[in-house]
Amino acid sequence: MMRTPFEVPMDGLPDRVTIYEVGPRDGLQNESAIVPAGVKAEFLARLAEAGLTTIEATSFVHPKWVPQLADAEELLTRMERVPGVRYPVLVPNERGLDRALDHGVTDIAIFGSATETFARRNLNRSVDGSIEMFTPVVARALENGLDVRAYLSMCFGDPWEGPVPVEQVVRHGRRLLDLGCSQLSLGDTIGVGTPGHVTALLAAFAEAGVGPERLAVHFHDTYGQALANTLSALRAGVTVVDASTGGIGGCPFAKSATGNLATEDLVWMLSGLGVETGVDLESLVATSVWLAGELGRPSPSRVVQALAAESPGRRNVTQVPAEVPPAVEEE
Amino acid sequence: MMRTPFEVPMDGLPDRVTIYEVGPRDGLQNESAIVPAGVKAEFLARLAEAGLTTIEATSFVHPKWVPQLADAEELLTRMERVPGVRYPVLVPNERGLDRALDHGVTDIAIFGSATETFARRNLNRSVDGSIEMFTPVVARALENGLDVRAYLSMCFGDPWEGPVPVEQVVRHGRRLLDLGCSQLSLGDTIGVGTPGHVTALLAAFAEAGVGPERLAVHFHDTYGQALANTLSALRAGVTVVDASTGGIGGCPFAKSATGNLATEDLVWMLSGLGVETGVDLESLVATSVWLAGELGRPSPSRVVQALAAESPGRRNVTQVPAEVPPAVEEE
Repeated sequence: MMRTPFEVPMDGLPDRVTIYEVGPRDGLQNESAIVPAGVKAEFLARLAEAGLTTIEATSFVHPKWVPQLADAEELLTRMERVPGVRYPVLVPNERGLDRALDHGVTDIAIFGSATETFARRNLNRSVDGSIEMFTPVVARALENGLDVRAYLSMCFGDPWEGPVPVEQVVRHGRRLLDLGCSQLSLGDTIGVGTPGHVTALLAAFAEAGVGPERLAVHFHDTYGQALANTLSALRAGVTVVDASTGGIGGCPFAKSATGNLATEDLVWMLSGLGVETGVDLESLVATSVWLAGELGRPSPSRVVQALAAESPGRRNVTQVPAEVPPAVEEE
Repeated sequence: MMRTPFEVPMDGLPDRVTIYEVGPRDGLQNESAIVPAGVKAEFLARLAEAGLTTIEATSFVHPKWVPQLADAEELLTRMERVPGVRYPVLVPNERGLDRALDHGVTDIAIFGSATETFARRNLNRSVDGSIEMFTPVVARALENGLDVRAYLSMCFGDPWEGPVPVEQVVRHGRRLLDLGCSQLSLGDTIGVGTPGHVTALLAAFAEAGVGPERLAVHFHDTYGQALANTLSALRAGVTVVDASTGGIGGCPFAKSATGNLATEDLVWMLSGLGVETGVDLESLVATSVWLAGELGRPSPSRVVQALAAESPGRRNVTQVPAEVPPAVEEE
């Protein structure tokens, strides 16, 4: 059995990609199971051990809305911090920033919306209102020497508004960058985007003076498009890709639906393309198998499903597909 | 909820793609459930109704090895043939050809291997021996006015031999074309390939004088790479893509593993790219939901999972992802 892809580079891609791991925050936040802080701390340790260097640790949103991350302060107190690894924390407002500062957080992320409807439903204010809310958060974070990433959600489609015009995404995205954020992560929150849309959106940002070095992409695999979209983004020069180990974070309302792009599926593609990530795939798969036990549901990652079915070193005769007639009829 | 992607074309892609539907043969052959001929006939009728114009109907391999398709003759007798739709049948040898001719089949497919090990294991002979076996099959088929497609399996990796050199794939592929086959379908039978590998393989064929107009691609989604690989193939000029409605045909030995690229996931991407297929997505999803009931397992297609969770016309509030804090903490 092949446990790693054959490496065949492709022209026009970056040499190296930084995977921004969102499993502990975006992933666990959207799982129905609530895992204890000790399990989260172990998850973070395993991810760093696998070679991930940017791992979003948790969030300071209200526990009433996200009980899965109610233990943010406990986790920040007990988690091990591996030198060289960044552990950003999602901060919705100034109170969240205060807590982050109290716990020695050095990297935060804020969360904006590309559409009015989603801003009102998720942030309880207009897009303008959310920018007002974020302004002092980013200003004070920068004063304190923190790095601030901005997420922008619903960059491709919105469940209420439908397709989202690229000009609108660029306009709202620039406002977040103009606050002083170092990076803007473009989220296809409902996973509806396709590769030409990705190319068009990144071209619109470039035309507006925002090059790919300031952008990250955040795809969901709800419609299976995440890797094809990632390939489009890499071709446009993006070098930071968000992903969730094991693909955790499926829509909590539809058990079978898939949420975040699985880090393993991304690593498989990048390894095959000869794009360096520094991540050890076997270690990541082992982590996802362990976490699936804690969450009580199997990983939706294709790579985890394929590799976990076989232990390393075992001759895999069962993996041979029966696409073909297994034997020709005797005459 | 968005039930179709936003159409944003991409430069360098074909205007139209023919989907070569393999669900009834390659899909059902690899499911553990054996469905009755009546269900198969309904499946074929539904696929044509959804707009598919090339639907591989069944196979004349020995029922001892593929009991799932033991009813090939019954199916060919009772199935409805929609005008304008081609229904190829897989034929392993001359005896299979005789049967196909007896049943008025006008399109057949033969099945070769890019590796010696797989040829010996699946065809019970060497690659040379398989070419010898196919030679009279193709010759007699052409004499009888049939169209012959050739599959070539293990074009990217082989579970025993590992990575397969592109030169070897081109060499064996050309031999099949030289027999008189009209089209060569390049199979990533174990799903390990990545987009750069696809580009390199198609470039090697082009250098050897085999242009993309004579090639099709057959990807498996075992490692989640099928759509990204398809995008690479489209950029190289390929316009025929194999896919299996509902993604049926997962490896029968590993329940969770995914086999063929799901036709629905492919249609979503192509629709988004503005590439015409003539296929109605809702009709296809309804077919997969129906078939999942017959097979007793849910479709592994991401699109089917996402769209089947919601019926058309129903306001989808549950589909809103909770990637973000659903509300900002009150201060």
